[in-house]
Amino acid sequence: MGINSVAVVADLGESFGNYTIGDDNALLGLVTASNIACGFHAGDPRVMDKTVADCVERGIELGAHPGYPDLVGFGRRLIEASEEEIRTDVLYQLGALDAFARVHGGTITHVAPHGRMGSIAQTDAKHARAITDAVAAYNKDYVVICQRGLLAEESRKRGLEVGYVFLADRGYGDDGMPVSRSHEGGLIYDPELIGERSAQVVQEGTVRSVDGNVVPLGHDADVLLLHGDHPTVLENGLALRAALDKAGVRVAGLRDVLKEKAEVALAR
Amino acid sequence: MGINSVAVVADLGESFGNYTIGDDNALLGLVTASNIACGFHAGDPRVMDKTVADCVERGIELGAHPGYPDLVGFGRRLIEASEEEIRTDVLYQLGALDAFARVHGGTITHVAPHGRMGSIAQTDAKHARAITDAVAAYNKDYVVICQRGLLAEESRKRGLEVGYVFLADRGYGDDGMPVSRSHEGGLIYDPELIGERSAQVVQEGTVRSVDGNVVPLGHDADVLLLHGDHPTVLENGLALRAALDKAGVRVAGLRDVLKEKAEVALAR
Amino acid sequence: MGINSVAVVADLGESFGNYTIGDDNALLGLVTASNIACGFHAGDPRVMDKTVADCVERGIELGAHPGYPDLVGFGRRLIEASEEEIRTDVLYQLGALDAFARVHGGTITHVAPHGRMGSIAQTDAKHARAITDAVAAYNKDYVVICQRGLLAEESRKRGLEVGYVFLADRGYGDDGMPVSRSHEGGLIYDPELIGERSAQVVQEGTVRSVDGNVVPLGHDADVLLLHGDHPTVLENGLALRAALDKAGVRVAGLRDVLKEKAEVALAR
Amino acid sequence: MGINSVAVVADLGESFGNYTIGDDNALLGLVTASNIACGFHAGDPRVMDKTVADCVERGIELGAHPGYPDLVGFGRRLIEASEEEIRTDVLYQLGALDAFARVHGGTITHVAPHGRMGSIAQTDAKHARAITDAVAAYNKDYVVICQRGLLAEESRKRGLEVGYVFLADRGYGDDGMPVSRSHEGGLIYDPELIGERSAQVVQEGTVRSVDGNVVPLGHDADVLLLHGDHPTVLENGLALRAALDKAGVRVAGLRDVLKEKAEVALAR
Repeated sequence: MGINSVAVVADLGESFGNYTIGDDNALLGLVTASNIACGFHAGDPRVMDKTVADCVERGIELGAHPGYPDLVGFGRRLIEASEEEIRTDVLYQLGALDAFARVHGGTITHVAPHGRMGSIAQTDAKHARAITDAVAAYNKDYVVICQRGLLAEESRKRGLEVGYVFLADRGYGDDGMPVSRSHEGGLIYDPELIGERSAQVVQEGTVRSVDGNVVPLGHDADVLLLHGDHPTVLENGLALRAALDKAGVRVAGLRDVLKEKAEVALAR
Repeated sequence: MGINSVAVVADLGESFGNYTIGDDNALLGLVTASNIACGFHAGDPRVMDKTVADCVERGIELGAHPGYPDLVGFGRRLIEASEEEIRTDVLYQLGALDAFARVHGGTITHVAPHGRMGSIAQTDAKHARAITDAVAAYNKDYVVICQRGLLAEESRKRGLEVGYVFLADRGYGDDGMPVSRSHEGGLIYDPELIGERSAQVVQEGTVRSVDGNVVPLGHDADVLLLHGDHPTVLENGLALRAALDKAGVRVAGLRDVLKEKAEVALAR
Repeated sequence: MGINSVAVVADLGESFGNYTIGDDNALLGLVTASNIACGFHAGDPRVMDKTVADCVERGIELGAHPGYPDLVGFGRRLIEASEEEIRTDVLYQLGALDAFARVHGGTITHVAPHGRMGSIAQTDAKHARAITDAVAAYNKDYVVICQRGLLAEESRKRGLEVGYVFLADRGYGDDGMPVSRSHEGGLIYDPELIGERSAQVVQEGTVRSVDGNVVPLGHDADVLLLHGDHPTVLENGLALRAALDKAGVRVAGLRDVLKEKAEVALAR
Repeated sequence: MGINSVAVVADLGESFGNYTIGDDNALLGLVTASNIACGFHAGDPRVMDKTVADCVERGIELGAHPGYPDLVGFGRRLIEASEEEIRTDVLYQLGALDAFARVHGGTITHVAPHGRMGSIAQTDAKHARAITDAVAAYNKDYVVICQRGLLAEESRKRGLEVGYVFLADRGYGDDGMPVSRSHEGGLIYDPELIGERSAQVVQEGTVRSVDGNVVPLGHDADVLLLHGDHPTVLENGLALRAALDKAGVRVAGLRDVLKEKAEVALAR
């Protein structure tokens, strides 16, 4: 396809008060972009401040990772909120994170809804509208990171750019969508395999499914996601970076990747 | 003094979820500026959204009213937080409110720390530094609403303009500072008296103390505060506006008042 | 049927911190039983303490009113919690309320799950099991207040007595179940009609539906619920008590009503 | 003194939702009593349920560890709460934990106020009264774990038994009270030294201070506390148990230890 670059992202800043989750220091050495928790499902103002500062210092793109107001559930439980509740909850979180970006001289480049809010937005129109209404009203320049589905559609309707994500450490079905973690092959434990699959999906647009078939992803792989709670996340990240290097894939920020794709498309 | 204008402010947007506090609709007709709760001691994203929209629609200045993260205590209990905790909590709230200002086409003009966080900052250097560090880092154009004390001093050190507030419905001591609510005369219940005192403090810079002496306030009265939980707040507001009109005091936004004062000062 | 008594209940203690909801003082004069919020969807330890003390002083039965951990949503939004989460959240709330009953010399007699947790438990087996597991493990003597459905079934399976509730101020469908508030006739605004319907449902077991048909409720009306947020709740309560008096229905506590019913059943 | 037994306790159940703190499984093998977080400063209903179940299964005494309602501050920041607020907050937490004790067939034996609430209660009469009022009203059989000071005094005034704690891994001053963690020698890192000191304080009632003097503790050492966040907590626990064994000190539950002491006192 002529495209040969990809961003690498991880969820960061999910610690809270006295509680630590994830090895953010290690992840910061592996990614080009961040999804930073905004204090509703995880994160607190100190954690946000430090995470933004760390990303700005290392040139890692800042992304907002808003979720449901459910710390005890870590944003993983559906809350049957109204469209107005979702829209304003997302807006609140976008602004809160942006305060830290501003004081550290950084710029937020993208938004990736967290957990159940993000997954339900692929198929629930109310969630997809509410989230994209908030993003579009706040900043039209923000890229929305998602998989294919309603969130991607509603983003484009509002003129928001979409960054398609490939879950690097997860198994995919024949439909080009990730299977659940509990499905056999749902979590991939072999770092080298994770690397190889990532290079393949960027360059070929295909993935070997849990049923053994090589299937098209059905959309670009603009950004590869590493899950911080994967037991071998650091090995995965190193293997992924090595495999991309070996395949000649350039690892860059999401804005840069999308810009290159736009230029290639124009040149055709 | 040649100054003849003043702003009128009230705390707004302190409802939460299913809970309503204050008659915001009535107050919106009486004030030129707002102190809007930011979700920590009161307020939620829906309340913030609506309050900001209402203020923008009526040309009322937007102010941030950050507080301690203590909804059950309504921000009225001291929390022995670290300087870092106070600074980042304030920053988070400034950004969150700003998101709603942004989507409604408004601009935040000032910050007034709420409740115990605000009162302790008059005498506690840690609080005064933390709050003003947050404000100055976020937006140097924000005016800090306060009484005389360390918060005013630290604001000026950081180049932040100060808007001195007079608590229109509260009794003052001979030292030109408000006495506690529980003090005899601490709460003034006569709307006309509230109006007369307000006109006097703006034009003469003096107030009759609870001990019966006419004493200097010791600083300008740039903005008059009406407490929304005062039993006769609406009557107070109407009487205050009427008394200012009668005395020929112009009621304006805080920025406008401060600009006029700066011009008068320059012209001397 | 030979039964001629009923309990009257209202949701109480739903204030929080500086926020007040409902006219509890007035309701305390109208009811024989209480559903007391336990601090998750509403209520706080001070409110719980005072509400329990007030009920004990007046001989009003104490009931626990556990809900989702969602203060901002007032427990009205479904949270897709696991069975374990629901069970332990209910247990926690039962114990917390019981502490106040204990120190005020009272005894909790019943449990009525609040809001969406209560309504979903009528049709969702996971919720019905989780709630009744918690209640049965904590105290087998607690009566579960509910409408017909899975919550009633699972209660009986665990040996818990059921107290069937009739929503006195709400319209019912031909199926003997309340229609939604937004449905035409969903909220009844005529206090006398509320009183008449209540006497009829207790004595005849029937209700005139929103479609104009006299239909059987399909279960006993052991307890009549007054909604504290109904605009005319006090008039409703007074009219209800007057209509019951006039019809010769004895108003008593729920335990007393259920005991009378059991004796009548035995005597047949 | 003829006493030769001691209890060993640790703070347990301080995880929250998706967040884990402390190696509770390991600590469960070292202690005879537990201080279990009650959901305000740490802990949630699932964590409480599991922690109580684990303790009951192993015959470890159950203790309530109530704290300020400040999850983000982990209960370590003073909140200037009213006596009524502290009393009802503690009551609420006592009841909540007791629910889990009840369903698992256990009995709560003691209360140990957490963090700043516990330390301030040694010198602040309001806190000491509020906490002991709550405990005495809820259950006169609960032992209050504390150091010497107002909390101990107010406990005895209300007829509550006191269990004096010695912080096994902390340095003490010449006044027989622990010095702050940041003080040189404030944290002891040598597990064997921790064990030796513990045996000595139980048998001799003395401790070598950070200034090198052997000083009396000034009260019994009924229970030895291991801090779960100490970097070598497991080594400390093993060394402590070994040292007690070697010195012939019997390790038992707190009730058992206090009963033995009472019998020895009577026999004199």
